[in-house]
Amino acid sequence: MKAVDIVEKYLINAQERVDNLHIEGLKIIQNEKFFRYGTDAVLLAWMAGERAKPNFKIADLGTGSGIIPILLANNGAKQIHGLEIQEYVADMAKRSVALNRLEDEVKIVVGDIKNPPELFIPGSYDIVVSNPPYMNESEGFKSPVREVAIARHEILCSMGDVSKTAARLLKDKSRFYLVHKPHRIVDIFCAMREHGIEPKQMIKVRPHEGKEPNMILIEGVKGGNPGIKLGEEIVVYNQDGTYTEEILKIYKKVV
Amino acid sequence: MKAVDIVEKYLINAQERVDNLHIEGLKIIQNEKFFRYGTDAVLLAWMAGERAKPNFKIADLGTGSGIIPILLANNGAKQIHGLEIQEYVADMAKRSVALNRLEDEVKIVVGDIKNPPELFIPGSYDIVVSNPPYMNESEGFKSPVREVAIARHEILCSMGDVSKTAARLLKDKSRFYLVHKPHRIVDIFCAMREHGIEPKQMIKVRPHEGKEPNMILIEGVKGGNPGIKLGEEIVVYNQDGTYTEEILKIYKKVV
Repeated sequence: MKAVDIVEKYLINAQERVDNLHIEGLKIIQNEKFFRYGTDAVLLAWMAGERAKPNFKIADLGTGSGIIPILLANNGAKQIHGLEIQEYVADMAKRSVALNRLEDEVKIVVGDIKNPPELFIPGSYDIVVSNPPYMNESEGFKSPVREVAIARHEILCSMGDVSKTAARLLKDKSRFYLVHKPHRIVDIFCAMREHGIEPKQMIKVRPHEGKEPNMILIEGVKGGNPGIKLGEEIVVYNQDGTYTEEILKIYKKVV
Repeated sequence: MKAVDIVEKYLINAQERVDNLHIEGLKIIQNEKFFRYGTDAVLLAWMAGERAKPNFKIADLGTGSGIIPILLANNGAKQIHGLEIQEYVADMAKRSVALNRLEDEVKIVVGDIKNPPELFIPGSYDIVVSNPPYMNESEGFKSPVREVAIARHEILCSMGDVSKTAARLLKDKSRFYLVHKPHRIVDIFCAMREHGIEPKQMIKVRPHEGKEPNMILIEGVKGGNPGIKLGEEIVVYNQDGTYTEEILKIYKKVV
């Protein structure tokens, strides 16, 4: 047994698996019973990563598996704090961080977005990112698996809570990056503006050319002036089911 | 001199001109010194017209040349009230209505969106449309021609004022149609929601394929549930400068 395999064995619990992220040898622990990270997390890490500098302090609100801090750290960010309310999920994220030997760069902390722990000093972050629950409390099927329901539905925190805390953590004129569902943009824009983060850019993501967008990426600026850019779009798959050129380029940058 | 030419001569003042709207023999009086109607008005008339039934009562807030009521009446709407704050502009619109013999269907009234005259009975409209000033007070070049400045900049009314009055005039669950600029969507969504009109659909309009959208069409529902559709797009011109098939279809329906 190789050393790395022993480490993996030690860090992985039953029902979890280790998924290899392409290229750089990154690994992530995921539980088959729960959600697994998707294109949304990768695109969010890309969008925030385009702006991030190595000395930036970054917070990830609702970090889940820790995928976004791990991707950002892998791309040079030195100080990323991931906040996760579910103890077991946070523990899994911590073990993924350890597995990738990113403990110096990434801190995973258990806590509530509505009232973040002390580590999260107000006005100290250069970037805040979030891949929050997409569905409001009343829409869609709610998973009987509590961890999944909490990650998908706004049970423990709403867009208002996420925006409020993002605004509190960010330095003035610093940026908030969010991935979400298109049908929620009115909620998102109104919540962000209410808490002093002005939406400045929205990128629509379509699964295929000509299909309805199923994801949006939003950039907001704390204390920014009104005025948003809407033009950009990303298409994920070619008609034959392979990734488009633009997605391959993004994956290459991020993963 | 033909009878129709005599009518035209009688209805047209100096510096005004009569523009023939394609196909149906519709005519519109426009003043060369001021703004003239554009694709925005035609697309708005199309979007509202797709929903309108002949018995619908429709209000147009800030009707300008009267182009939208005239197009809607030409497509079968029987009761359209156009509100215009500028007396001279309203007078021009009235003469265009007369020129097209649509006085039974279209009433043009001078008044303020912020406090509409008695004709506009709260809760009585099936559709409200508006092609309001696109720019907030502080952005862009303000025309020295007062009529143009008022039509382009939010000098006499803001998106908040338009949304508030639209909400007041509409029946419950009835629809508001708006054409505006993409960079203003946060202002628009927040204003609509604040006044109880939920944005339900947004169509982006690009001048050419691959160019940034320069116009958006928005449909809101008074008292509607949260959740918006974002997918649709319209491209106006082909690369050779001719109209696209989709725009020709829309023009054919409306004009």
